[in-house]
Amino acid sequence: MKKQITIVGGGLAGSLLSVYLAKRGFKVDVYERRPDMRKVKISAGRSINLALSVRGIHALKEVGVFDEISKILIPMRGRMVHPLDGEINFQPYSRNPEEYINSVSRGDLNTIMMSAAEEFPDVQYHFNHRCTGMDLETGEARFIDEQTGQVVVAQTQAVIGTDGSASALRSELLKRSGFNYSQVYEDYGYKELSIPSGPEGNFLIEQHALHIWPRKTYMLIALPNMDGSFTVTLFFPMKGDVSFENLDTSEKVQQFFTAQFPDALDLMPGLLDDYFGNPVGSLMTVKCSPWHHKGRVLLLGDAAHAIVPFFGQGMNCAFEDCSVFAGLVDKSGDDWEKIFAECGQERKENTDAIADLAVENFFEMRDHVSDPRYLLMKKIERRLADAFPMRFIPKYEMVSFHRVPYAVAMERGQIQHQILWELTEGIASADEVDWAKAQRLVPERVPPWTWGTL
Amino acid sequence: MKKQITIVGGGLAGSLLSVYLAKRGFKVDVYERRPDMRKVKISAGRSINLALSVRGIHALKEVGVFDEISKILIPMRGRMVHPLDGEINFQPYSRNPEEYINSVSRGDLNTIMMSAAEEFPDVQYHFNHRCTGMDLETGEARFIDEQTGQVVVAQTQAVIGTDGSASALRSELLKRSGFNYSQVYEDYGYKELSIPSGPEGNFLIEQHALHIWPRKTYMLIALPNMDGSFTVTLFFPMKGDVSFENLDTSEKVQQFFTAQFPDALDLMPGLLDDYFGNPVGSLMTVKCSPWHHKGRVLLLGDAAHAIVPFFGQGMNCAFEDCSVFAGLVDKSGDDWEKIFAECGQERKENTDAIADLAVENFFEMRDHVSDPRYLLMKKIERRLADAFPMRFIPKYEMVSFHRVPYAVAMERGQIQHQILWELTEGIASADEVDWAKAQRLVPERVPPWTWGTL
Repeated sequence: MKKQITIVGGGLAGSLLSVYLAKRGFKVDVYERRPDMRKVKISAGRSINLALSVRGIHALKEVGVFDEISKILIPMRGRMVHPLDGEINFQPYSRNPEEYINSVSRGDLNTIMMSAAEEFPDVQYHFNHRCTGMDLETGEARFIDEQTGQVVVAQTQAVIGTDGSASALRSELLKRSGFNYSQVYEDYGYKELSIPSGPEGNFLIEQHALHIWPRKTYMLIALPNMDGSFTVTLFFPMKGDVSFENLDTSEKVQQFFTAQFPDALDLMPGLLDDYFGNPVGSLMTVKCSPWHHKGRVLLLGDAAHAIVPFFGQGMNCAFEDCSVFAGLVDKSGDDWEKIFAECGQERKENTDAIADLAVENFFEMRDHVSDPRYLLMKKIERRLADAFPMRFIPKYEMVSFHRVPYAVAMERGQIQHQILWELTEGIASADEVDWAKAQRLVPERVPPWTWGTL
Repeated sequence: MKKQITIVGGGLAGSLLSVYLAKRGFKVDVYERRPDMRKVKISAGRSINLALSVRGIHALKEVGVFDEISKILIPMRGRMVHPLDGEINFQPYSRNPEEYINSVSRGDLNTIMMSAAEEFPDVQYHFNHRCTGMDLETGEARFIDEQTGQVVVAQTQAVIGTDGSASALRSELLKRSGFNYSQVYEDYGYKELSIPSGPEGNFLIEQHALHIWPRKTYMLIALPNMDGSFTVTLFFPMKGDVSFENLDTSEKVQQFFTAQFPDALDLMPGLLDDYFGNPVGSLMTVKCSPWHHKGRVLLLGDAAHAIVPFFGQGMNCAFEDCSVFAGLVDKSGDDWEKIFAECGQERKENTDAIADLAVENFFEMRDHVSDPRYLLMKKIERRLADAFPMRFIPKYEMVSFHRVPYAVAMERGQIQHQILWELTEGIASADEVDWAKAQRLVPERVPPWTWGTL
């Protein structure tokens, strides 16, 4: 008989993980709260666009589904910045044309992943099954079949929770002594809006970019979709003078967008319907440890480390979790207690790092991208990256285009920022930089790169 | 009809709060999970001794029960340090003979507080009522009467949760978007042991001291009881070479105490029974915000901010919460939404501060109290306190003998520590200190004291 494992949550991480495990000879039962999205349309209005980058791609290649997924990707080669005053400007993510991030629809991606998983006869999805808890001593996981109202009990060797930022399994761990946990909300929320396609299904603004309208204390972003439309997200304070709380009439919304986002407003005929029809989402960072209890249960993905979306790494990080997990299974078979403990040990400092980097990147996106000193630092960063290709990799590139551990990316990023800060002190243009000093500082402070390239 | 309020948790904070509220004309229902401790003996073995200091005393005086409580207090005037090698030495908490902390039995104190509350006809205790949740929208709090199994619903204007570090009401808030929360466990646990009284009910070691056996990575402490005995607590790593996990046979325990705590061992004939009969307690810090939801529910005491016991401030801080709360009621009547919000605002930075100070003090107690540089700093601290009585108040005194906000005590404590650190750099005795520098640094860095004295 095959060894069986239960996955709670059939979203992106759960589906990817079930492929990894099926390929390693396990029988996998996936319990998913929602109905089968391939048969029932699930309401949108919440984080329907994602940015796939190298860590996610690596995992998809490992399980052999990347070729199919590549068909639904739209490369975004840089940020298209829309200042309130001044020219629209393009800031490439990398000087290497092979390095870009990819806009992808969460629904389309999940659909492909589920179908890829179900090609394995040993993977069985149980839709409409909401997890109501787990007995951590016996390993019994409990569900309610939302269609029949029946209670379903899964008695299994081990359970992996990929049930997202509001994880039911995490709630069980939270009841136990010794479980460290934090959840921190931003004072900001988000709302999804949209820019429809042009008359022929064409893109009305540059297709191959992530568009940003930075406004210091808030921002609008737009990501391209396959049908020529853009999914637009407004990140905005929850409370205060300029906030979701206060922007509560059609007149105010119209006035606000006219003043703050005039070029975007022209492209959004459905603004008011979107604004008043879509919910305000909240932004939260969750950290916890340990991620597991004995060999009974392990949390992965958002369930273990929900992060804010500003580095586009939530999914990529969750996929990297799965890849690391699969590597540990290759090493230790089904010694779950060992694998679960090692997985948390290996990932924790890295997921903590990307959580912090993601919060940081909010300030970069909404504020710094139009700041003269930031732009100057970016210019010098580029030159240093050219001069020291095996030492000085810009932080954004380390996170998005390399698989160096996030904690390393964060640490090197801080050192590099410090160098750029020192070099731009008191100067107004890149030509004034003390280049001899720059060439001394980098080898002095940034260790050589040992992680290979893509 | 009188205005009614519900308190969940009839421990120390809940009982004190009910007196404050009854005195202000409210009808108070107190729901308590445990049976009436005045009628049923509740198992001990967990944190049965507390140290009452000025913040707690202030609150008890405000409600007029301090006189009665003073009869069950044993003053502790300083730390009696028992090194492994070397002389037992006494470190007074203050140079002022009126400044000391008081050992008190949690059970005796709670008993007096409950009886004091019940003297008000408008205070009603409901024992054996376990809170199972609350509907934050309707304000309906639910309980199970553990004796009858019946569900009891309290429909009330407002609920205050003083239900301790594992608060059921906090669990409800935790489910809501926007509630920030963290729980952090120490790697250390504790176990209660005891030193019985002598043949005539006499104290076998100094009565008016808090005894410490500091051993760098762990420690033993002892607090006096009214009957001549001492409650002893071992704070010890949970896991590792020298840990509760490993110290698991009578032989090992005996050997360990013989080697590490020989003088204490001689006084503990029941060591093995205590060690194997009492549970290992865990040590956790909980922080959260906001403490309230609208005017429906407010958390106070450990429910809002569980802290580790190393500064002896858990109860004192909870009592101070109640005093602050009562002050806000005096100002705003029963405008609960306003009062609840202001209470959290006023207390949060202070309870965060004492939480951090309490963790810090663990290192001081288990390690630094036998360190030569620490002792040197203490000596100079004493001199500076004498030279600048209205500026330089030692941190321990600010926390234990003054009612300056904890956040102020922490900030001033850090500045003072920095001064002492600089003054003791490279010297071996207090006579070598650069006194002119000391006299310059204090007025330069430490602002004048504006909080009055006791």
